[in-house]
Amino acid sequence: MTSPSATSPILGIDLGGTKIAVSCARLDGHELAEKKIPTQPEEGPERGMERVLAAADEVLEQAGVARAELAALGMSVPGPWNHQAGTFLKLPNLSSWSGFPVRRWLEDHFSIPIHMDNDANAAALAEWKFGAGRGCRNLIYLTMSTGIGGGLILDGRLYRGINYNAGEVGHQVIVPDGPLCGCGLPGHLEGLCSGSGMARRLRDLIAGENSSMWQMADGDPEKLSAEILVAAVRQGDTMAVEFFRQILEELSTGLANLVFILNPERIILGTIVARNPDLYLAPLDRLVRRKVWEIFTPDLRIVPAQLTDRIGVYAPLALILEALDLEPEEVTE
Amino acid sequence: MTSPSATSPILGIDLGGTKIAVSCARLDGHELAEKKIPTQPEEGPERGMERVLAAADEVLEQAGVARAELAALGMSVPGPWNHQAGTFLKLPNLSSWSGFPVRRWLEDHFSIPIHMDNDANAAALAEWKFGAGRGCRNLIYLTMSTGIGGGLILDGRLYRGINYNAGEVGHQVIVPDGPLCGCGLPGHLEGLCSGSGMARRLRDLIAGENSSMWQMADGDPEKLSAEILVAAVRQGDTMAVEFFRQILEELSTGLANLVFILNPERIILGTIVARNPDLYLAPLDRLVRRKVWEIFTPDLRIVPAQLTDRIGVYAPLALILEALDLEPEEVTE
Repeated sequence: MTSPSATSPILGIDLGGTKIAVSCARLDGHELAEKKIPTQPEEGPERGMERVLAAADEVLEQAGVARAELAALGMSVPGPWNHQAGTFLKLPNLSSWSGFPVRRWLEDHFSIPIHMDNDANAAALAEWKFGAGRGCRNLIYLTMSTGIGGGLILDGRLYRGINYNAGEVGHQVIVPDGPLCGCGLPGHLEGLCSGSGMARRLRDLIAGENSSMWQMADGDPEKLSAEILVAAVRQGDTMAVEFFRQILEELSTGLANLVFILNPERIILGTIVARNPDLYLAPLDRLVRRKVWEIFTPDLRIVPAQLTDRIGVYAPLALILEALDLEPEEVTE
Repeated sequence: MTSPSATSPILGIDLGGTKIAVSCARLDGHELAEKKIPTQPEEGPERGMERVLAAADEVLEQAGVARAELAALGMSVPGPWNHQAGTFLKLPNLSSWSGFPVRRWLEDHFSIPIHMDNDANAAALAEWKFGAGRGCRNLIYLTMSTGIGGGLILDGRLYRGINYNAGEVGHQVIVPDGPLCGCGLPGHLEGLCSGSGMARRLRDLIAGENSSMWQMADGDPEKLSAEILVAAVRQGDTMAVEFFRQILEELSTGLANLVFILNPERIILGTIVARNPDLYLAPLDRLVRRKVWEIFTPDLRIVPAQLTDRIGVYAPLALILEALDLEPEEVTE
């Protein structure tokens, strides 16, 4: 392998609980091809990774790139994992992959440098290098989807902590003895304000009540979701508006805590917030500024993620750029 | 000035709300002389700094060091300040110093490099280089005295944030709408578990009650303090034991939040905890481990600060070593 240049192609794998994005891009960020396949967790990891391999071959063919030309492989994995061992922990949406030695599997199938990290860290790097965090030295990225993951760029690099698990900002306690989080502990930000947390609370909140959200969910509690809540808020449903106000209150407390602890210049909010910036951003900004001291706010901006549906390409790519210690501009010819 | 060596002497100033430590030490950590003078905030900053200057002359004479020999001056200031401008903010214990351009004052009186930061950052650096944090790459230091300040050593350097105010870990919300913190905001860790926070809550808690703590305070609510609480806990006072259990519960939540966010290898607890390690450490350790995931705990240790009464010498010295990018061993001849 020659030393990587701007046009060097890389292979990206973005593993999620429901789908896997396999992509080929150049180190300068130019996208060549992408294919999304369903994860089908019930099939287990070996079968899943074989399908990834097949998708990779398709993607490379579409991009006109030979395997031998690849400069590196980047892969982002969903949620916390064992970075040192390169194996999966037991994840709620992917429990059948628990313990699977994914790094060794990749090393057995690719003879190129392999760079891996969890999705929130990878997305933080991607937004920093290509999206809403360009030019920042200190930023906090929050995933805001089924769960609330986080990635911390501090003093111009990704901060991982001693066991590679830093950034789990969704697991700060916001309401002592509050509702259980998906992780089993009470009162976490994720248990309260993530997509799954909001859906769970919504079920309890409107049980037996006459709410427009029941119709939207076809009367099925399992169909209640963040999307339905947001739609009901937009329609002015009183109960939804009131509940959403509480969500913003709790979320702003979590962000204010992070401002006190990390004094960031930017907080980037993903998925649900990025899809509904008009509902979230102005009130969050106002609430956070009310909950921190003025000395923290002159350089603080709370913004939506920019890469959204392109994150599957940019997250693995950003992991590779980080490992090579390259900025996108440095690899531009 | 020649380039600094292990034996280069430095002048240290550790400004507190009640006393100021002025010291002379060598860069390798060898202490030469120290003098503590009362702050007397009511006299204002000019008079205060003149007395610092007089104390410095005394200390230098005692150390046998001429002013011209000094390699640098380090100063730690109490709580948040305007690092960029080098001026004081309005601090509860030192409001008369608000706006005083302390850095310019020092530059007018000393023609040597001057390095300043808040006490928690300086103490974090000191414990890292000389105390309970030696050899760590990631640690969190908490002051645990009148207030709860924090200093973060992340990836082997002090993390300051975009406005030099990172590490205010005492101002995370632990109890929404809880008692007001000294900073005026509700439910902060500092408002609940700092020395002043505990004293304030104790007053409300035992008002009208028949508690041994009244006798210890000579019946004067203003004399209720963390020291009295701790003494009552040691005597088995039921109310004190119950309240202290609540303090540990809240403090452990704050530490667990920090573990999730920063995945540190060490948490160093100062002053009150360092004076009462038997009461605090084992239960805190147990509670924190119960409140975080197992993947965060293999390398985590919660320990008392080691420098305690020597912090006035080591904190300014550590600021200088950090600025020179030197480890104590590197300056050893």
